[in-house]
Amino acid sequence: MSGRHLEDFQVGEAIEAPDTYQMTPERITAFASEYDPQGIHLDPGVAAREMFGGIVASGWHSLSATMRLMVGSRLFDAGPIVGVGVDRLRYLQPVRAGDILQARGEVIEVRPSRSHSDRGYVVMRVVTLRQDGVPVLTQDWTLLVPRR
Amino acid sequence: MSGRHLEDFQVGEAIEAPDTYQMTPERITAFASEYDPQGIHLDPGVAAREMFGGIVASGWHSLSATMRLMVGSRLFDAGPIVGVGVDRLRYLQPVRAGDILQARGEVIEVRPSRSHSDRGYVVMRVVTLRQDGVPVLTQDWTLLVPRR
Repeated sequence: MSGRHLEDFQVGEAIEAPDTYQMTPERITAFASEYDPQGIHLDPGVAAREMFGGIVASGWHSLSATMRLMVGSRLFDAGPIVGVGVDRLRYLQPVRAGDILQARGEVIEVRPSRSHSDRGYVVMRVVTLRQDGVPVLTQDWTLLVPRR
Repeated sequence: MSGRHLEDFQVGEAIEAPDTYQMTPERITAFASEYDPQGIHLDPGVAAREMFGGIVASGWHSLSATMRLMVGSRLFDAGPIVGVGVDRLRYLQPVRAGDILQARGEVIEVRPSRSHSDRGYVVMRVVTLRQDGVPVLTQDWTLLVPRR
């Protein structure tokens, strides 16, 4: 198995994803048609009457875009990273067409497995930001990482 | 705002999504190419050498498919449901081409907002299952719901 080892991670390490992801009407429609076919993502008339006052991207779309951004970061340089879970995921702001997303991670916990001496867990807080620097999503990824 | 109200939810209510979602090689490739371009999802040679021994679907793909299934359930019959967060998300089993996914939810908490008397929160445990009944994903959605 390639990839980083537990010993390569330190609490406080920050990882900035270099790319951006632009939400467009076409991308919002394509994702929502396939995975989240609700009026608030697809129908301007319905969306206008709901909480956000207009079309917003599916939360799962913004999350998937965040994954794409993080895959382009050096977190994944050395090979695949296996996620075991996500905690404390919060939708902070709606994401709309025209928004440009960025993502960054920070290691908040590094711990060896109690049951398997050959592995451990890294918890990374991943924040997705809008072009104006406002966070739109935050989540904590737990990653399974081999030990040396 | 349409949709269900807090008073319409009770702890223990179970919601079975009626549809299924079949993972196919084409769907795994299409999703991963766009949102999770890693070898374990796209390259059989790379995937064979990694932990799962072959191509697996992106976790974000299985999560997005779960959303699609739940949108088809009666949870969404009365209108949109606004998610505010996800907790305790766990990837339990890899999902591979040929797997057929189902989803079901159970209300595990109903609570009024402390700060806003016109709304409350419903926590729903959502489980995604494989064709053999084995859970592949579990997560707890927190939904923002208006009060009557």
